[in-house]
Amino acid sequence: MDYKISDKLAALKPSAIREIFKSLTDPSIISFAAGNPSPLSFPVEDLAALSADIFANQSTTALQYSVTEGYPPFREAIKKRLGEKFGIGRDFDETIVTTGGNQAVELCCKVMCNEGDVVVCENPSFIGALNAFRSNGAKTVGVPLKEDGIDPEGLEAVLSTTPNVKLLYLIPTFQNPAGVTSTLENRKKVYEIAKKHGVLIFEDNPYGELRFAGEEVPTYKSFDEDGLVMYCSSFSKILSAGMRIGYACGPAPVIQKMVVAKQVEDVHTNIFFQMLCYRYMTERDLDGHIAEIRKIYAKKAGLMLSELDAHMPKCVKYTRPEGGLFLWCTLPDGMSSAEFVKKALERKVAVVPGTAFNCDTEAPSDSFRLNYSTPSDEDIVKGIGILSDLAREMFC
Amino acid sequence: MDYKISDKLAALKPSAIREIFKSLTDPSIISFAAGNPSPLSFPVEDLAALSADIFANQSTTALQYSVTEGYPPFREAIKKRLGEKFGIGRDFDETIVTTGGNQAVELCCKVMCNEGDVVVCENPSFIGALNAFRSNGAKTVGVPLKEDGIDPEGLEAVLSTTPNVKLLYLIPTFQNPAGVTSTLENRKKVYEIAKKHGVLIFEDNPYGELRFAGEEVPTYKSFDEDGLVMYCSSFSKILSAGMRIGYACGPAPVIQKMVVAKQVEDVHTNIFFQMLCYRYMTERDLDGHIAEIRKIYAKKAGLMLSELDAHMPKCVKYTRPEGGLFLWCTLPDGMSSAEFVKKALERKVAVVPGTAFNCDTEAPSDSFRLNYSTPSDEDIVKGIGILSDLAREMFC
Repeated sequence: MDYKISDKLAALKPSAIREIFKSLTDPSIISFAAGNPSPLSFPVEDLAALSADIFANQSTTALQYSVTEGYPPFREAIKKRLGEKFGIGRDFDETIVTTGGNQAVELCCKVMCNEGDVVVCENPSFIGALNAFRSNGAKTVGVPLKEDGIDPEGLEAVLSTTPNVKLLYLIPTFQNPAGVTSTLENRKKVYEIAKKHGVLIFEDNPYGELRFAGEEVPTYKSFDEDGLVMYCSSFSKILSAGMRIGYACGPAPVIQKMVVAKQVEDVHTNIFFQMLCYRYMTERDLDGHIAEIRKIYAKKAGLMLSELDAHMPKCVKYTRPEGGLFLWCTLPDGMSSAEFVKKALERKVAVVPGTAFNCDTEAPSDSFRLNYSTPSDEDIVKGIGILSDLAREMFC
Repeated sequence: MDYKISDKLAALKPSAIREIFKSLTDPSIISFAAGNPSPLSFPVEDLAALSADIFANQSTTALQYSVTEGYPPFREAIKKRLGEKFGIGRDFDETIVTTGGNQAVELCCKVMCNEGDVVVCENPSFIGALNAFRSNGAKTVGVPLKEDGIDPEGLEAVLSTTPNVKLLYLIPTFQNPAGVTSTLENRKKVYEIAKKHGVLIFEDNPYGELRFAGEEVPTYKSFDEDGLVMYCSSFSKILSAGMRIGYACGPAPVIQKMVVAKQVEDVHTNIFFQMLCYRYMTERDLDGHIAEIRKIYAKKAGLMLSELDAHMPKCVKYTRPEGGLFLWCTLPDGMSSAEFVKKALERKVAVVPGTAFNCDTEAPSDSFRLNYSTPSDEDIVKGIGILSDLAREMFC
């Protein structure tokens, strides 16, 4: 039988990260390739206790079909927290619970884009979002990400000359993969450009609560008085990634269509874990727990940076993150990272090549991404040593 | 701000079922409108015990990111059960765990259909699937569902004359909404027609294990030696609907693309509940549990039928289900059910009008759907009394 795969999926390759993951079945490999939260960040005992109580007292609700928008008390709690803590949400906004944050990205694209429409992204950007756009037949067009955020002049040029741009996808805080947090000045400029062109901003903020140094920068959504911003975050990095609970807050007409689209994807998100999340939020100390996670990541990032500072040849540059999960390394003189990544894997250290994050899938990259949240301290020391030796041999 | 919604979502209305559900916040309404399993079918104590053990001994795996295809031991257990119990699965097949069965429907459409391509369906058919196709920009074309299954002559005519048919969507067993189980003879004919035209059959079988009378009919997938059938089922009706765990088994090239598409929708299905399902399957008596559920539904269906037999005027016809969750009622002389459904709701009994299940959304319907799994015995007696009185007043 000849399977005629749709154009959008025929063109979509499994992500490079995924391919690297397959090699990770070898336990002797040190992986800096994941984007996993530290298992130390899971409040297992609290979740177990609340879970037992849900089975004992709320099992019918927790095991039955539920509403697509999300468990109503949970949606309310999310809305309240977003408003009180981050100044997010106006009267024209609604909230939807999604099966992980990425579902919100995918749903929003499906709601806004016909096949062939364009999503403008920071270049580089998160592979999971880029592929979500591509899986809906949308085209991704990249605008360079600079030190203070997406390049406003580049953005203006693209929006002025590209037909059918329907979304501007941004990860303004602790950007994945590049680690950049855009400045407030940059955000204000970009907001005005998007407003001028009538393009919805999708603000993806999965790492925003993981700041362990520096000053908070207000989210786009917090100053959105025009219904221009769809905001998205998740509990993956602050409670559990495996439960797949995310949410979006944005203009009602778009959220309502996302609800319709979600209904036919998965009807609703696992209701037991929505209730569990809700009870954790309201009966335990979520903010205290997040403060503990920040300490873990401050320590992990600090260790990786001190090892890099001590051993990595100076010709290799790297970011100094103030939060999030990643470091972004750049090789000297625009060298391609492909060979370096391949040789590192031969020496049993896995990192993700920058090509995985390119909007233009054929473009080369001089960069690679390092994750510090998942590996043990011992593996951080050993793995950075191996990468430093390799860089010295190859480049410096 | 003017939100330019994509053509596919702009045209997609929330399902009529959903609209009816909104009226169900009134607790005095008797609902025959749901498709919910009975809460009596949830093995709460077993799930609670296994859940506690997962928190105690497997929490890191259960709360961390996992692989898109599904928890490997769970996929193996599903594959084994499908093979041993139902003769499903060949060497060319693979299995994927999905966030409820409907996600498999939606993913398969995304993988097979460009915008404007056609999915041929039984008419009437399941609204959640029809809308999943529409949400991907595919067109739905209906072929009449007769007493022994989809009409083969009608199917041949459509496949001979319609360009770009990419999927044939069927619910061959205890069809939703019409309750029809197609005969083996019909299935063999339909299989050959699909094979001749090179069209993939999507066999949706969420109710197949809920047979409480009559003889089993082999699934399409059990005689699929050509890689022509994508088979889908779920744990929603046999363990818990709220956990959202489904699966599909079909030709590897299609499943592999579904995995790529799923990765950017929700990364993976809630891993804790995949592990919980797996442990229930392997450490408890799933088949014994299903036998108990069948007894519950036999009793519920029997009660609804005996009340209908005793009170409903003879001019209203209804199916006599041998399994599943639904009865399908047809009004006399091709009368539209819209007015009847509206008046029933005024008398505080909710049923779903047949129009909700039409492939052609503008077509009228002389039918409505009754669910017997969710209401209490008392409500079944009372509600059927009200519907019978109304039918007598209106028609007979």
